[in-house]
Amino acid sequence: MALSEQPRVLKHQVVRSRLEESLEDLVEGDPFPAERELAETFSVSRETIRQALRELLLDGRIERRGRMTVVAGPKILQPLSIGSYTEAARERGMEASRFLVGWSHLTADARLADRLGLAVNDPVLQLERVFTTAGVRVGLERTRLPAHRYPGLEADFDVCSSLYAEFGRRGIIFGRTEDTIETTLPDAREAALLHVDARTPMFLLRRLSYDDEGVPIEYRRSLYRGDRMAFTQTMYPD
Amino acid sequence: MALSEQPRVLKHQVVRSRLEESLEDLVEGDPFPAERELAETFSVSRETIRQALRELLLDGRIERRGRMTVVAGPKILQPLSIGSYTEAARERGMEASRFLVGWSHLTADARLADRLGLAVNDPVLQLERVFTTAGVRVGLERTRLPAHRYPGLEADFDVCSSLYAEFGRRGIIFGRTEDTIETTLPDAREAALLHVDARTPMFLLRRLSYDDEGVPIEYRRSLYRGDRMAFTQTMYPD
Repeated sequence: MALSEQPRVLKHQVVRSRLEESLEDLVEGDPFPAERELAETFSVSRETIRQALRELLLDGRIERRGRMTVVAGPKILQPLSIGSYTEAARERGMEASRFLVGWSHLTADARLADRLGLAVNDPVLQLERVFTTAGVRVGLERTRLPAHRYPGLEADFDVCSSLYAEFGRRGIIFGRTEDTIETTLPDAREAALLHVDARTPMFLLRRLSYDDEGVPIEYRRSLYRGDRMAFTQTMYPD
Repeated sequence: MALSEQPRVLKHQVVRSRLEESLEDLVEGDPFPAERELAETFSVSRETIRQALRELLLDGRIERRGRMTVVAGPKILQPLSIGSYTEAARERGMEASRFLVGWSHLTADARLADRLGLAVNDPVLQLERVFTTAGVRVGLERTRLPAHRYPGLEADFDVCSSLYAEFGRRGIIFGRTEDTIETTLPDAREAALLHVDARTPMFLLRRLSYDDEGVPIEYRRSLYRGDRMAFTQTMYPD
């Protein structure tokens, strides 16, 4: 398991770097040369080519369409903001939707109680959904809610619609959100739900939201496919 | 190179998930059980254990100290903001520094000219530095500058100091920054410069900064180790 301190430059990494250069001149959907052809061009084994292509796939630079390998489209840009990911995507003209993975009824352990301003063992409602954009599963979101604050939510809420809009209908006004953004690798269940290879770098966003009186209203954990999404932000000096 | 559409749950992923649970009860620096012991506990091969440990290493949950494997410390939290990463780390009491990788003299190609508001073939000065925190190489930053705007920079600038402070000394006032945040895998050179395994998910930040008159003043590409760093942000509704 030793991870070497000074990695050697491996053959497939050289190939990957040359292939990345050649991608600059291609556009989305252009067919990518076949493994055999690339192996001849670079005078390396097909296994070396496969490894280089795998890294380009994980990075979202190329993608498989049926038996073809083609140049991937640009990543979906998502502004970092409070608000619904799906609504934001739709506003930019993209087809976007959500589907339910499941509702769960939890009780708060010490950590979750502390986060959500609850007592230990207080009921917590958990909603898990997958987000799609242009038919691709891009995100998996797990939201934990102080159950007493959202009576009847599981029965009333249309899980294909915006949870933040539902907050608004219930008279809950956002005060602030505190986000942490990490990278991670998906676990097996996450990889299966997002149809993604388990070696794909992912964004992991954790969000604690408060209402206008500073009371926690949700603790959210969102996993986004790093090969398909990027975040944007414009900032101004203080 | 086929990435399966519906990944199976692999044995090492089950082990990784159980190990992650056990990490919840441990603190930084706690020794992690040896491979042989874990293989017995889970009744799996040592190769399966190695694979699970590799993923925990790439995720920054455990780390190697000499021949020991120990529980890693929490990731370094960095607020998303305009400003010097190093100064921000120092303000929070962390030892942080930078060292020079190199200066380069480029000429703008069409894309770079467009970004920096230059004509094609205009001179561009490139500065590449590595950022360290608590002795660990956490980031690699490549900044491209319109050369005419920074006369004498290469001779005058102390590369261990803040470039943004140098902008200030030269009377350049920040207007806004436009950031894009992606995940990626490091290439061979980047992995070597950051002493990181090439399978480690990384943050890739691209920043275009403008002065107070809306003129581009830098195009920056920063690579941060995802196993060591996380970004934080507090947001308020519009």
